[in-house]
Amino acid sequence: MAGNDRENDTAAGRFAYDGLDPVLHSKARIGILTALATNPEGLSFGDLARLCSLTDGNLSRHLDTLAKGDDGKPGLVSISKSFRDRRPLTTVVLTAGGRKRFREYLGHLERVLRDAAAEAAPSDARPGLAGA
Amino acid sequence: MAGNDRENDTAAGRFAYDGLDPVLHSKARIGILTALATNPEGLSFGDLARLCSLTDGNLSRHLDTLAKGDDGKPGLVSISKSFRDRRPLTTVVLTAGGRKRFREYLGHLERVLRDAAAEAAPSDARPGLAGA
Repeated sequence: MAGNDRENDTAAGRFAYDGLDPVLHSKARIGILTALATNPEGLSFGDLARLCSLTDGNLSRHLDTLAKGDDGKPGLVSISKSFRDRRPLTTVVLTAGGRKRFREYLGHLERVLRDAAAEAAPSDARPGLAGA
Repeated sequence: MAGNDRENDTAAGRFAYDGLDPVLHSKARIGILTALATNPEGLSFGDLARLCSLTDGNLSRHLDTLAKGDDGKPGLVSISKSFRDRRPLTTVVLTAGGRKRFREYLGHLERVLRDAAAEAAPSDARPGLAGA
């Protein structure tokens, strides 16, 4: 049967990381989603642009992609327009589906970190040789 | 002065994640670098392609980018050619500079995970209200 971890490390696709959802896996979108995840009441377009150091045009393009959904999945963010002090206000909120999908993505990032951390052990500690 | 964490969360660029090195931040390259980091003796081109589920052409292109270095930085991987059983063998090894730069990148991924984890607390536990 499968054997030990070392043996699993040689399996085809062991380091393919297909779970790193391409819709989420960009520096800008990771920033947008993390900012929204930590602000569940939503953020204004202007605050989001500032927090993520994105130009208005760049943020707009990313939000379009995140809001439209793909493959029949719901959009990751919802965008609403209102007025505050008679000025238009655009508010962006992470949807429940977006939160779920972002958490799944983060789970895959955690797996990368666990996998990569495995390399530190041999040179730093060599546990197998500790008692020799 | 700066104030509490919550206040820092509103700083411009708080979620910009500029440390997510674009040379490393692709699903394929994360896979290649993790596979090499956990195999310090190096991997053959064929094994690397199989472990990362990449076509030969795709792996070649990524390795070219990773090997050439940019901005005066050393290459992240080194590629050597030899023969085994009279057949050509290409071996790919993570360089010391590549290991360092990959670790720095992983540190930034960890920061994303810490930041995103901060959102779980309010809805799951509401520590501030626990004693109320």
